[in-house]
Amino acid sequence: MARPTPLSGFPEWLPAQRIAEQQLLDRLRRTFELWGFASVETRAVEPLEQMLRKGEIDKEVYVLRRLHADPSSADSDLGLHFDLTVPFARYVLENAGHLHFPFKRYQIQRCWRGERPQEGRYREFTQADVDVVGDGSLAFHHDVEVAAVMTEALGSLDLPPLTLQVNNRKLMEGFFRGVGAPDTGAVMRAVDKLDKEPPNAVRELLVGAGLSDGQADTCLALASISSADLSFVDDVRGLGVSDELLDVGLAELAAVIEGAAGIGGPRVSVVADLRIARGLDYYTGTVYETRMTEFEHIGSICSGGRYDALASDGARVFPGVGISFGVTRALAPLFSRGLISASRPSPSAVLVAVVAETSRAASDAVARSLRARGIPCEVAPAADKFGKQIRYAERRGIPYVWFPGADGTDEVKDIRPGDQGPADPTAWTPPELDLNPTVTHP
Amino acid sequence: MARPTPLSGFPEWLPAQRIAEQQLLDRLRRTFELWGFASVETRAVEPLEQMLRKGEIDKEVYVLRRLHADPSSADSDLGLHFDLTVPFARYVLENAGHLHFPFKRYQIQRCWRGERPQEGRYREFTQADVDVVGDGSLAFHHDVEVAAVMTEALGSLDLPPLTLQVNNRKLMEGFFRGVGAPDTGAVMRAVDKLDKEPPNAVRELLVGAGLSDGQADTCLALASISSADLSFVDDVRGLGVSDELLDVGLAELAAVIEGAAGIGGPRVSVVADLRIARGLDYYTGTVYETRMTEFEHIGSICSGGRYDALASDGARVFPGVGISFGVTRALAPLFSRGLISASRPSPSAVLVAVVAETSRAASDAVARSLRARGIPCEVAPAADKFGKQIRYAERRGIPYVWFPGADGTDEVKDIRPGDQGPADPTAWTPPELDLNPTVTHP
Repeated sequence: MARPTPLSGFPEWLPAQRIAEQQLLDRLRRTFELWGFASVETRAVEPLEQMLRKGEIDKEVYVLRRLHADPSSADSDLGLHFDLTVPFARYVLENAGHLHFPFKRYQIQRCWRGERPQEGRYREFTQADVDVVGDGSLAFHHDVEVAAVMTEALGSLDLPPLTLQVNNRKLMEGFFRGVGAPDTGAVMRAVDKLDKEPPNAVRELLVGAGLSDGQADTCLALASISSADLSFVDDVRGLGVSDELLDVGLAELAAVIEGAAGIGGPRVSVVADLRIARGLDYYTGTVYETRMTEFEHIGSICSGGRYDALASDGARVFPGVGISFGVTRALAPLFSRGLISASRPSPSAVLVAVVAETSRAASDAVARSLRARGIPCEVAPAADKFGKQIRYAERRGIPYVWFPGADGTDEVKDIRPGDQGPADPTAWTPPELDLNPTVTHP
Repeated sequence: MARPTPLSGFPEWLPAQRIAEQQLLDRLRRTFELWGFASVETRAVEPLEQMLRKGEIDKEVYVLRRLHADPSSADSDLGLHFDLTVPFARYVLENAGHLHFPFKRYQIQRCWRGERPQEGRYREFTQADVDVVGDGSLAFHHDVEVAAVMTEALGSLDLPPLTLQVNNRKLMEGFFRGVGAPDTGAVMRAVDKLDKEPPNAVRELLVGAGLSDGQADTCLALASISSADLSFVDDVRGLGVSDELLDVGLAELAAVIEGAAGIGGPRVSVVADLRIARGLDYYTGTVYETRMTEFEHIGSICSGGRYDALASDGARVFPGVGISFGVTRALAPLFSRGLISASRPSPSAVLVAVVAETSRAASDAVARSLRARGIPCEVAPAADKFGKQIRYAERRGIPYVWFPGADGTDEVKDIRPGDQGPADPTAWTPPELDLNPTVTHP
């Protein structure tokens, strides 16, 4: 075939980028498991009618058809999942009898949406989700927990500075009610437009939702409040609105900010941002979004919130709270700008040179000995001149070349400074930093 | 929605099974990387015309369509990949300028085929592939290398006893030529039917391919040869057929058997099995298949071979050799029989009890301290009576419950024998064996 070209919206990584991605995924997994979250993977497909049951018809779902399907077959339509929440809700219902609630799971998988591709939006992308789901009820402190575990996980990734923005639907709903809004949902949807529309346009929407000019200004004033500490509580109180649900929301938001602050280290700040509404999604309490500094144009890279009914089979209701990190959304722009990579594109720390094809077995034995002690290595593909074998290692960023010798006269060369000295394959170990490729920020 | 039911052919795992699968995947990755194989992941989709270019029209490919696609749009048809070889060949061509050859990669991903599901055959399944691909040429010793790395990887998995069966197309081709077959390809395809058809039926096919009764018997005699050592060479010689290509094939097969024997430990044997042909696939030298003892009915769980042209863009040809392990094919029957699981369905080694909701922060602090030292743990969801909190841990297989006390009077209880004693959250560590869930063979 002719040289193929990439498919727009289906990003793929070169080996060094993939190593960086793998190491970031390993860190996410490590943190999630340290917090007791169990891995779940779901199949890639869901019955179409279930995927669309929440009116998510705006999602550009990919529908499957078997190439040789009998047109008269009764196969129900299957689509590729567009997120990990819908499949997880289905998994919980299907396996409720085998799970222990509250059930904490993380899920790192690809999703697909047939949307128009642009930076930060792909047709195939990896998500990393954490959720806690309860049977019948789910204590509020899990809202704090998912914010904290994700903040810690994101803090381990060495991404550009991140801001986790938290708000609370009860706070908003209560406030809008206290202001006297006739339709709090319409006010919520208007406020949600603040990141796309100028405040004046949103004020018009608010007035259109039945608010007076003064009420509209009060709602806009609420949306302008943001703080990395608990000062937002006094700022809200200063607007002079009172409502019981507002009190609950304020207390919940304060608890999330207090519980997650500082956990992500210096590169992740957690702020109360009273503008965050998360539009049409079915959240009922805490909501989360995350901005990456200098990459604000790609939108939120990590979002979620509390659902009163993540899933329900009629008889039982399963409330949930979760956050979803857009791995591809965050990494693709960094890869394309060369801002993140790996120290080498190969796992090998050592290239074992081959003196002659007839003595390849001796080189294989050295490699076996190194591997037995956890040192990734490979044997040179050809018994070329040593200069050429060293260049082979150099091109792959392999830091050491091993020269097998007769009867314990082996030598190993660090090809960066060029140091070379005797070495025993059953004892020599590279410095810890050279053992595996590391994530770099060129 | 009503309680959903599983989709036939799309297996999913409960948390303990998923932990077992993850740990086996970790071991595969670990071995592949110790041998210097770099991870590659490709997108899930390929243009349909490229997937079918090798006449693989018999594969039940899933074709994609966007739900809201403009019927007049020129979007080319995309299908879900049915293996990892076709996408990898495309990746090599697309990125040849950025890769270093010979390029060693492993790839662990899902594939999809719309086939009729049965045990060992699924519509969605995970494959773990290793391949080495060269630019223009690829030395034979890589045939030994991929057999060895996969044998070592399989040996790390604690599956039922496995037999890696190796043969060589040059050996077969040369032998059939030496016998005087007018159409060696037809003979190969007939021999390939030996695992489905009785020898008499295959003899008829051979005669139909233009062989005399004697020639057919000689070919059947070749196919009956099998040995875990190099004795197969003399057995073949004993049939009195001579041919130059046969000599090359015998030497290559002997090298693979010699190079891979013993590497997988006591549970993986490597045998020369001269019946293995791998049918219609485009192999040109070494071929591999793998049987799992007592699960022979599911077919080969790990197969591959040497391609003279894994990929080609007309100007350049990229030969390759690789093996693909069917992770789902091997694990699903073991899961369904309860032959493999994990010691617990949660990563948590410790449940930190909560004395009262008002002191939840103290429990959170203990958990933070344990996590900082790499101990997976979770905090109890409610300040229930301790007996109930202990049962929460018991049901999840969490071995330790931590009771926070005032000013350094914390205690930890091993809930299996019931031992309880004082413990310091900044110093206490569970035994290594309890730290993470382990794979079990109930």
